[in-house]
Amino acid sequence: MSVLIVGSTALDSIKTPKAENPRLLGGSASHAAVAASFFSPVKLVGVVGDDFPGKYLQLYRRHKIDLEGLQMLPGKTFHWSGEYEANMNHRRTLLTELGVFETFTPALPESHRDSPFVLLANIAPGLQHHVLNQMRRPKFVVADTMDLWLNIALKDLLKLLRRIDGFVLNDSEAHQLTKEDNAFAALKKIHRLGPRYVIIKKGSHGSILSGPRGLFICPAYPLSKVVDPTGAGDSFVGGMMGYLATASGSIDANLRRALVCGSVVASFCCEGFGLTQTDRIKRRQIDARVRELEKLTEF
Amino acid sequence: MSVLIVGSTALDSIKTPKAENPRLLGGSASHAAVAASFFSPVKLVGVVGDDFPGKYLQLYRRHKIDLEGLQMLPGKTFHWSGEYEANMNHRRTLLTELGVFETFTPALPESHRDSPFVLLANIAPGLQHHVLNQMRRPKFVVADTMDLWLNIALKDLLKLLRRIDGFVLNDSEAHQLTKEDNAFAALKKIHRLGPRYVIIKKGSHGSILSGPRGLFICPAYPLSKVVDPTGAGDSFVGGMMGYLATASGSIDANLRRALVCGSVVASFCCEGFGLTQTDRIKRRQIDARVRELEKLTEF
Repeated sequence: MSVLIVGSTALDSIKTPKAENPRLLGGSASHAAVAASFFSPVKLVGVVGDDFPGKYLQLYRRHKIDLEGLQMLPGKTFHWSGEYEANMNHRRTLLTELGVFETFTPALPESHRDSPFVLLANIAPGLQHHVLNQMRRPKFVVADTMDLWLNIALKDLLKLLRRIDGFVLNDSEAHQLTKEDNAFAALKKIHRLGPRYVIIKKGSHGSILSGPRGLFICPAYPLSKVVDPTGAGDSFVGGMMGYLATASGSIDANLRRALVCGSVVASFCCEGFGLTQTDRIKRRQIDARVRELEKLTEF
Repeated sequence: MSVLIVGSTALDSIKTPKAENPRLLGGSASHAAVAASFFSPVKLVGVVGDDFPGKYLQLYRRHKIDLEGLQMLPGKTFHWSGEYEANMNHRRTLLTELGVFETFTPALPESHRDSPFVLLANIAPGLQHHVLNQMRRPKFVVADTMDLWLNIALKDLLKLLRRIDGFVLNDSEAHQLTKEDNAFAALKKIHRLGPRYVIIKKGSHGSILSGPRGLFICPAYPLSKVVDPTGAGDSFVGGMMGYLATASGSIDANLRRALVCGSVVASFCCEGFGLTQTDRIKRRQIDARVRELEKLTEF
């Protein structure tokens, strides 16, 4: 089955102490779509301007991503620029030019409205609602978010939580939403807000899934060098949804392995700037790291 | 086989926003010894003053801890007092009265010098050396440490690293020692300083073992409420050594499960002030949580 992915499609200019990488392909939907494409067919919904480089359209196509829902409008593509400190733990936004993204309204092509798996990648909760309003009975809907929406669109986000199956957020966002320092206490509070499945991402410390079958402690793949963590969280959730969409059996039976697959795709993402490394890998490399993680956690 | 444990034996006064607990049994050796006692016979080496409450001697004895190496000197027992913030992540030392600990020289009874398993719990590296000098061919020696010794006794500590099999430290100490932000990069550097086995503790994020068989990602037992994390790291390494000392087979074959056992004892430690909760539990409760962790990490 295919995954419908809605989110931002952007150009990212990323500075680190060692390198400057202007106008890389970025955005939550780009990272999530490429990550999901290793496992299942993907339909991408987003918007780009007329400055969007043809090579990035080719990249999407190389991963067999359906672009019928990618709007191309006159104007500039969303451009984000950020700078990382030496330890990669702190980043600072230098510039945000919304361009055509400012007035983006995701309009789903008729062929997209029956997609069974829907990933509402990081984007304004209002737009996430707008996408759901156009869907007919999706099987499994997951939403990601970011601190910005907790600050400026909390009401919309809380409404969204009552409409989705799974919610993904990082540990600092979980704290911001629940005022709980303890991740397990936060998980309980977030379930009460609606979603049956809640996943807290903890970067290099892995992630935690909470659902009807209880908790799952998901490891991160060990990397002794991180080149650029931008998009790792989007890759994680994209890989997870891609795996879920093709695995046979119930969501509950597949979700743990889906998280591990997402975790592995995220590890490749961290090994190159933007999508450079993710674009290069093959499914068998993902499978090899999943097997490694099995061995690294066995006791 | 038995475990010899050398470290501090203290009275801890612990303040949290909700409670004040004066003069609890504490110290690295106390926590490690009780933790190890669930798995194997323990010989404790430390020092207390003549103000040391009889009930704490009874606690040691309840756990069948051999006290032949516990010196009782005229004067005051080492007294530490600290205060935790509401989120339990930050603590601040209010007072440190060394008492009889100031001139402590661990003298090993003859019956202790052949102990196969030795845990040099957190204590000055000079004293850790002094203990090793008295031992005859121990099978497996592990040392723990703290930031203080990295600051004031680095030379002694570096010498110690060439004499031990395993070294345990937390993530911030690993950073302090190697200047590496990345835990996996830090592990590689620490191996070069001597120890074949290195374990980095990451609190609620679990721990990482690096050894001849590669890496092991060890989970922490999920707790939605932490009452008092004092002594959790000591309990972890104590439980680990206790398990190792009685498991049949090679160190390599047992070390992963030993870490998990340590992790579980540490989780109980966090659920009460000082040793209150650890003192109460039974081996079967530890085994039950180990089985739970197997299920929580399976994919």
